[in-house]
Amino acid sequence: MSEQATAADRRTVPGGSEFDRDIAVTRREPGVYAIDLHAGWTIANAVNGGYLLAVLGRALADTLPHPDPFTVSAHYLTVSRPGPAVVRTQTVRTGRTLSTGQASLYQRDDHGEEVERIRVLASYGDLDALPDDVRTTATPPALPPMDQCFAPQDGRSPVDIGSALTDRLLLKLDPTTLGWALGAPSGKGEMRSWFGLADGRDVGPLALLLAVDCLPPTAFELGLSGWVPTVEMTVHVRHRPAPGPLRVSVTTRNLAGGFLEEDAEVWDSADRLVAQSRQLARVRLG
Amino acid sequence: MSEQATAADRRTVPGGSEFDRDIAVTRREPGVYAIDLHAGWTIANAVNGGYLLAVLGRALADTLPHPDPFTVSAHYLTVSRPGPAVVRTQTVRTGRTLSTGQASLYQRDDHGEEVERIRVLASYGDLDALPDDVRTTATPPALPPMDQCFAPQDGRSPVDIGSALTDRLLLKLDPTTLGWALGAPSGKGEMRSWFGLADGRDVGPLALLLAVDCLPPTAFELGLSGWVPTVEMTVHVRHRPAPGPLRVSVTTRNLAGGFLEEDAEVWDSADRLVAQSRQLARVRLG
Repeated sequence: MSEQATAADRRTVPGGSEFDRDIAVTRREPGVYAIDLHAGWTIANAVNGGYLLAVLGRALADTLPHPDPFTVSAHYLTVSRPGPAVVRTQTVRTGRTLSTGQASLYQRDDHGEEVERIRVLASYGDLDALPDDVRTTATPPALPPMDQCFAPQDGRSPVDIGSALTDRLLLKLDPTTLGWALGAPSGKGEMRSWFGLADGRDVGPLALLLAVDCLPPTAFELGLSGWVPTVEMTVHVRHRPAPGPLRVSVTTRNLAGGFLEEDAEVWDSADRLVAQSRQLARVRLG
Repeated sequence: MSEQATAADRRTVPGGSEFDRDIAVTRREPGVYAIDLHAGWTIANAVNGGYLLAVLGRALADTLPHPDPFTVSAHYLTVSRPGPAVVRTQTVRTGRTLSTGQASLYQRDDHGEEVERIRVLASYGDLDALPDDVRTTATPPALPPMDQCFAPQDGRSPVDIGSALTDRLLLKLDPTTLGWALGAPSGKGEMRSWFGLADGRDVGPLALLLAVDCLPPTAFELGLSGWVPTVEMTVHVRHRPAPGPLRVSVTTRNLAGGFLEEDAEVWDSADRLVAQSRQLARVRLG
């Protein structure tokens, strides 16, 4: 774990950031970490998948010799609830520039039995050691200026779409992707938003694992309602974001057979494509 | 494993298909399988990553109660060579419609030590049990008719780009993505091809894991040469392909910092988007 980067991140928020506090894990023994999953990162009492990834990512950053997640692949098994959890990590391979690890998060069920919630494979490297060439051909999403976008708690829609999770975030949603909140879904599987952390902490590599899973489901703009649970999600972290608000753009193009994929892109203020993710999720039809 | 589907697949090729033969694993004990990785599925003596996924997928289909891979996430650790290998699988969770498993492939190095080559997490279901709704908004790639496309062994380019792997396949590459083979890369990170198996076997769900990783690297069309090793790849299998040749379209949009992502789509003759994949790969610059 790069202690230098961590200290610099913490200086951004006097007293420390709630994100860092809420993903902090306590090492019980090598490869075994304890945490209380914080209720602040939930929607309808289900712990957000991106927050879970950040928790696992935090544990793996302690386990592996390289500090930053480069690619994280997660299979979600059962729903996580706020409260005590154990993370077990394993080093799979260490190399000069990349290491690979595995991590699982467990909670006890009502009978006191340990149940696995999520299992991930992740390859780590050092983002600050990458060469600085950029030949990206993708282009940033077009979002209206922030003051023309809506926070979930704004109350300008008939539906209050805020949640405990969105209270932790600076979300400013693109109104052209909010038709669903006004009973008029666009029919296009798109969702776009400005993104930051509510307490102003800069978004670092672990917070990018959160950022890709924080927007309302694109399924809502396709006229579907209800929960769209993630089966699997893979996140590529490609660059440490420049300071300032990020732009998140999510699209789905293959809704079929009761499943859909969702692709998310995260762009920073320097117009770098800093993270990409794809998840497979289940939809309830009709 | 759906024995009925397997028998139907085998009937497609009198005497059996080389794909089925070359991914067949022998169960030594529960969760432990042996295989000889076949030299036919290599490029420059490196075993193709998609073929490896199909081998692991075959073992997991035997281990798990559901027959078909829905989403497979693989982290590639060390290069696999033709020859003996062991696959160890583990059931992570079984559910009514989905199960999740983990699998690793090992080979012995020159000192006789077991080295892990690849580790995967995969969630399996039953493709034939999915509802038949299709609300896909993605559209198939535009490819010239097959007789206007080139097989790697065609010899029409100054470079013979055939390999042991391509001899196993029916590849007909889109000439608009073959500029690199004529010394004139297009500058667009795209690769497109018709795809089938050389012996005519229909492409089933396991062969889709192969199909997404069989084309020349998109990096070649960006003017880069040399090996573009896969760090991680996730494949979504969404539908059993209709009979007949498939279309594979690969794109990269984020080449930066010594890495690129490659997205592959596989479309069948009924214009269904039957598989999607994304990999993170390393590039050697210059």
